[in-house]
Amino acid sequence: MDVVLGVSNRHVHLCERDLKILFGENYELEIVKNLVQPGEFASNCFVTIKTEKSEIERVRVLGPVRSYTQVEISLTDAFKLGIKPPVRDSGDLAGSSAVTLIGPNGSIDLKEGCIIATRHIHITPDQMLEFGFDGMKSVNVELPGEKGGILYNVQLKVSPNYAFEMHIDTDDANAHMVKTGDIARIIK
Amino acid sequence: MDVVLGVSNRHVHLCERDLKILFGENYELEIVKNLVQPGEFASNCFVTIKTEKSEIERVRVLGPVRSYTQVEISLTDAFKLGIKPPVRDSGDLAGSSAVTLIGPNGSIDLKEGCIIATRHIHITPDQMLEFGFDGMKSVNVELPGEKGGILYNVQLKVSPNYAFEMHIDTDDANAHMVKTGDIARIIK
Repeated sequence: MDVVLGVSNRHVHLCERDLKILFGENYELEIVKNLVQPGEFASNCFVTIKTEKSEIERVRVLGPVRSYTQVEISLTDAFKLGIKPPVRDSGDLAGSSAVTLIGPNGSIDLKEGCIIATRHIHITPDQMLEFGFDGMKSVNVELPGEKGGILYNVQLKVSPNYAFEMHIDTDDANAHMVKTGDIARIIK
Repeated sequence: MDVVLGVSNRHVHLCERDLKILFGENYELEIVKNLVQPGEFASNCFVTIKTEKSEIERVRVLGPVRSYTQVEISLTDAFKLGIKPPVRDSGDLAGSSAVTLIGPNGSIDLKEGCIIATRHIHITPDQMLEFGFDGMKSVNVELPGEKGGILYNVQLKVSPNYAFEMHIDTDDANAHMVKTGDIARIIK
């Protein structure tokens, strides 16, 4: 079973309240580019992620606004920032890392919210049945190329609204020298 | 078959001539820390890798001096520098990437010499026989942990002077969240 790869660079999701603090009271995220997942988009907004040790500038905000603020970085980013975020699914933020977000209008000290996202595949319930994945929580996925290999623990994220696509972070992508649009092979 | 991992951060090997240009006529590399491979050491010297796009400061020089100058970086570093180095074994530098090295005493424009090192295992001829690897050029290696997986195309580098050890770059290490001293498992 082949799946198209999408490589996620470090990015931020914001709740309505935090968007207003960082960008101003009546600010709305503008769509710069629609992502593969329906309704999701890259916005024209950037923030700085700051910690005691260091900072990373120009981290893109993805839209639309969510019910929670979440910062997704790679382990390489985490070393630079001097923090140890857990590997987590989106929205599973209890006890995750603290960072400060800085926007043009203000800043927010997040007590938690910074994670390394799990490798995952967006898939519909129909596709789960069609592909014989029913009841499975994760799969292994083979990546092609001269630095190819197999990624374990790729979570299956199921929703009727999803487009079939696999998301990995820049560390996984750079280690295996793959990029957005490349084809990977799911191993049951 | 288990093997101990050594994670190679970006580093530089210098020939005698280039050491003198970068650090001065009578300069000799001092041993800060011996590496696992016999005779190899981390020195107290750092250089800057510079390209048209960007630069990376404080890149450590490893000793002893070699017959060739070689710059080993990760793909993440390569993106920052705006270059596309090939994946190569040590010493196989024909047509590899151009970079400038800057030291306290001078600089060198390398027309080639910058590579992404192949994943590899240092092993002795006796161990090749003992482990049943005779005639093999490469193996696959399983990495442990919650971002574990399998690395393909891990080259077997054979010499009676080697210590049994696997070297990966920081992209491979960070993608799989492993570090120097962790144990990996060779899959024939």
